[in-house]
Amino acid sequence: MLGEFEIIARYFTRRGKRKDVLLGVGDDAAVLQVPNDRRLVAAVDTIVEGVHFPHDSAASDIGYRALAVNISDIAAMGAVPTWFTLSLSLPAVEERWLEQFAAGMFALADVYDMELVGGDTVKGPLVVTVQILGLVETDRWLTRSGGKPGDLVFVSGVPGEAAMGLALVQHKLQSADITSGTLLQQRFSRPEPRVHLGRCLRKHASAAQDVSDGLLTDLSKLCAASDCGAHLDIETLPRSAAMNALLTREAQEPFILGGGDDYELLFTVPPERALQTEAAIASEVRCTPIGRLVEEKRVRCFRGGCEVGVSAPGYDHFR
Amino acid sequence: MLGEFEIIARYFTRRGKRKDVLLGVGDDAAVLQVPNDRRLVAAVDTIVEGVHFPHDSAASDIGYRALAVNISDIAAMGAVPTWFTLSLSLPAVEERWLEQFAAGMFALADVYDMELVGGDTVKGPLVVTVQILGLVETDRWLTRSGGKPGDLVFVSGVPGEAAMGLALVQHKLQSADITSGTLLQQRFSRPEPRVHLGRCLRKHASAAQDVSDGLLTDLSKLCAASDCGAHLDIETLPRSAAMNALLTREAQEPFILGGGDDYELLFTVPPERALQTEAAIASEVRCTPIGRLVEEKRVRCFRGGCEVGVSAPGYDHFR
Repeated sequence: MLGEFEIIARYFTRRGKRKDVLLGVGDDAAVLQVPNDRRLVAAVDTIVEGVHFPHDSAASDIGYRALAVNISDIAAMGAVPTWFTLSLSLPAVEERWLEQFAAGMFALADVYDMELVGGDTVKGPLVVTVQILGLVETDRWLTRSGGKPGDLVFVSGVPGEAAMGLALVQHKLQSADITSGTLLQQRFSRPEPRVHLGRCLRKHASAAQDVSDGLLTDLSKLCAASDCGAHLDIETLPRSAAMNALLTREAQEPFILGGGDDYELLFTVPPERALQTEAAIASEVRCTPIGRLVEEKRVRCFRGGCEVGVSAPGYDHFR
Repeated sequence: MLGEFEIIARYFTRRGKRKDVLLGVGDDAAVLQVPNDRRLVAAVDTIVEGVHFPHDSAASDIGYRALAVNISDIAAMGAVPTWFTLSLSLPAVEERWLEQFAAGMFALADVYDMELVGGDTVKGPLVVTVQILGLVETDRWLTRSGGKPGDLVFVSGVPGEAAMGLALVQHKLQSADITSGTLLQQRFSRPEPRVHLGRCLRKHASAAQDVSDGLLTDLSKLCAASDCGAHLDIETLPRSAAMNALLTREAQEPFILGGGDDYELLFTVPPERALQTEAAIASEVRCTPIGRLVEEKRVRCFRGGCEVGVSAPGYDHFR
């Protein structure tokens, strides 16, 4: 059986390509060169089997996901993902599983020319923690706290698709249409971090964060950080053909407002910069204006001008 | 009951003191300023309940330990620990437990003026991952790979004390002498990272690493990285009065050679720099020469000039 040092050597040590990695995996720590004209951006996210992904998930999807959810945090800052470390708690060593896990993770790492610079492998329940490091220009980065009343609220992609995909995986939803079903499951298992969009938004958005716990929950967090509230227009929420193939518009709404796992970007733009911003992001993923920040520190939802009560608390691990 | 966001807000958000933390806990990621004349040093270490610490460990000791084992990696590079992120997987929220965990962790963080810059709290088995970031001068840092045949091998402190302390906690050893027993248990529950020693060694040692998995295992790793072997003189291994109060010299040896959890520094020094190095580290923790690097790529142990077979494989999670 492989020992922990062989696991790291065999599956997680690759010939590094980045010149700014002065010392990589295999010593007590890595040594990295941060350019003088950049700030360092750091985040950490953990995924647990049975909580963040179903027990029978493909190892390659788990590897992909662990890195994707972290890249999403870097994207929400308008930064460039650069390096990462991995902590892998495993019940047992299955070589095939490790091979596929590493393949899923490195496939995504390669998209962004990222390098794994450190790792720890321990025996325990299946828990994957990635800490990600990125770089951003010194003059400006995105935060949750820059929103002002009057700013337009946008969201990228189609929130709710991932939650519907998960419901399909869990057999809580069924799809007669195979293509739509596959697409939605893919949105859950392979969320695409919005790095390029974040880079475009760096100089345009007043505030940003990624949608991981659910649209309403995450909008509430952005509002709290920006010390304001928001009015959300339910009718403007983006929908997709795949969603429409499965559920009525109304039945989709709990998934859109409360579902997590989309890893889209939620961002705000001052109205006078709206046209310029839309032009700047035109070649990126579809972004939809869905509401507006307001002074009153609450998030309210409207349909056709009338306020509607919605119950979509989003995901909180200890609630 | 507290939700995950309240946990972070209540226990892990403190008013930051470091000016190089441009954006701290509470956004998608932190933004940090690495000085132009420093390199970034990064490492990650995970501790799992029942594997790295006993099930009934005090929460404050777990918090302390999670950070200490990471600081030790930074110390082994000759760097200064600076920032860290925390991922905490918890079965349930117990406010008293969280309060004490945070107290143990921040007490150690304050010793080194370190700041927590990001965190994630998820529901799951008790697993704590810290990723640590440090800074080191651009001209030189310590690695495992710089050792050369002929270099003297030193170790700091008294390896084996922590393993004996753990054996006491687990009732595998018993101590009639309360003072010795308490001291050894303390060495397990509150290992002291050798940051100052690492800083002193930065310009003197040819190679270094910390002793976490056991002296022989870790010496083998240093030798492998330095492409050489070592001769270890068993009779020169440091002993303490507390160890001697519990076991005969011979009975101590499995703990010294194979026990982990000491978080002392193992380092090598070219013979011509030995005096200078001993002078430089004179005011630090006791360091003992215990052997010498050799060309033959094996680690051999000697007692009174005769080779002795030792069986002390050290700790490997998957063996």
